[in-house]
Amino acid sequence: MLESWNDGPAKSAITDFVARAVAEVPAEDRVAVFDNDGTLWCEKPMYIQLDFLLRRFKEQAEADPALREKQPYRAAYSGDLTWLGDAVTKHYQGDDGDFTVLLAAILSAHHAISVDEHAERVAAFYADARHPTLGRPYTACGYAPMVELLRYLEANGFTNYIVSGGGRDFMRPITGPMYGIPPERVVGSSVGLIYRDGDVFTTAEPEFLDDGPMKPVRLWSRIGRRPIFAAGNSNGDIEMLQFAQAGTRPSLQLMLLHDDAEREFDYVAGAERALDLAAAHGWVVPSIRTDWKTVFA
Amino acid sequence: MLESWNDGPAKSAITDFVARAVAEVPAEDRVAVFDNDGTLWCEKPMYIQLDFLLRRFKEQAEADPALREKQPYRAAYSGDLTWLGDAVTKHYQGDDGDFTVLLAAILSAHHAISVDEHAERVAAFYADARHPTLGRPYTACGYAPMVELLRYLEANGFTNYIVSGGGRDFMRPITGPMYGIPPERVVGSSVGLIYRDGDVFTTAEPEFLDDGPMKPVRLWSRIGRRPIFAAGNSNGDIEMLQFAQAGTRPSLQLMLLHDDAEREFDYVAGAERALDLAAAHGWVVPSIRTDWKTVFA
Repeated sequence: MLESWNDGPAKSAITDFVARAVAEVPAEDRVAVFDNDGTLWCEKPMYIQLDFLLRRFKEQAEADPALREKQPYRAAYSGDLTWLGDAVTKHYQGDDGDFTVLLAAILSAHHAISVDEHAERVAAFYADARHPTLGRPYTACGYAPMVELLRYLEANGFTNYIVSGGGRDFMRPITGPMYGIPPERVVGSSVGLIYRDGDVFTTAEPEFLDDGPMKPVRLWSRIGRRPIFAAGNSNGDIEMLQFAQAGTRPSLQLMLLHDDAEREFDYVAGAERALDLAAAHGWVVPSIRTDWKTVFA
Repeated sequence: MLESWNDGPAKSAITDFVARAVAEVPAEDRVAVFDNDGTLWCEKPMYIQLDFLLRRFKEQAEADPALREKQPYRAAYSGDLTWLGDAVTKHYQGDDGDFTVLLAAILSAHHAISVDEHAERVAAFYADARHPTLGRPYTACGYAPMVELLRYLEANGFTNYIVSGGGRDFMRPITGPMYGIPPERVVGSSVGLIYRDGDVFTTAEPEFLDDGPMKPVRLWSRIGRRPIFAAGNSNGDIEMLQFAQAGTRPSLQLMLLHDDAEREFDYVAGAERALDLAAAHGWVVPSIRTDWKTVFA
């Protein structure tokens, strides 16, 4: 177990905690929650879901020339993605101006289709798309040490959930094969749905943006239990880790540090506050560079 | 298995379907959804949750005399519950006037407390309250044949969920002991929640009323799979049964008929349309009087 983890404080903190949890926490309450983007799989140079959406924005701009003058369609159509990267970084730094524009486009990108048709569009994307710099399919961009951690927790009676700011229905088709996490244990952002004639359809109405303080709200709504293990990598994961830590049971918080420009990426933008809090509250901060023998399988 | 069920068409339909599902449907897609009120436990003479809420309304009316002139506090304070029964029956007949008044009171009954404190209030109620006419604790008002059905489905690889118009967090504390269904598999109506300082708190904002066409929406949002088995007993369950039936896989729909005034209750109010549709679409309609050997354990 945990073969891809180097011996060191991070690995020891995990194995020590798991031993304690097995001794002290009933199996049904051994709930572990994982952020997805940047925690279970690569989120650079941009969120994988953004690539999915950009392809759709480009389709939409090809069909409607007027859209080519508006963001984010202009970015998607031209291929100059500076605006997009800035919108996301600014969001994690507290400025939501452009992020709101992006969200509106996201909401209307796949509306008025059945959830089955949405899943087919997502599956078609994953079948085709590859990471722009890592030279592998997106479905091979999961972190091998984190997948090992999922299996290690499971082997010790934990139940793993994804709690991500990413789209719930963008993740569900691949979390089973990639992480062994079934659709019913994927919590994420969502658009409103509507029932009609035996089927459930997407709307263009926002439902939840599962990020920041919404993460503990959404995970509690879905699970009805307070997690004892929480892993993230950005400011959007802070409250989820705090919620796990504030319980009365032994708990572990993990804030992954992206510091390996050679094998993955090296960045802290959008994680500044999270890393400060990690130091202040005893959260474990695994370093990709020094704690992981391998990054991808 | 199914010892409390008499041999007959209902029992045969269940066992035939389960045999077919085991042969044709992968275990992970053997999803069964159950309404709660009137399907897994008794909903007469009033919803059990209404008793919980009435006790709270009465507390509130005792603390604030002005409330005693307003419904539903007047009903709770005086003990004359006619207004309440009528509000619910009219709701299922399409008239939501009084139901809206009731919902507003429900939303404010337990707001601004932590989800843990809410669970404690619910647990205190169940520890104390008894059914007004059946002479047993509410936690003993589950239908024994339905609990057997849950176990029978589980034994055949199904995963059971509750999908109820009742309050999600009113059900969660007892669905484990009563039905063997853990909190993470309870879908129900909910108020909005908010995160603050390591904890999740109730608000007085509505989130979801998990009834009618919202049942397939909410169950799909939570599970990400279309159920192949759906059980209900009222007009509020119609769309959930339709959703299960509209899939491409073998499926079974069950609409329980309350026709046993001696052992339980005899009523069809609020189920008229559901029973018509059951006849039209081949849904199984178990009769409590003739299909069940025993009603309560």
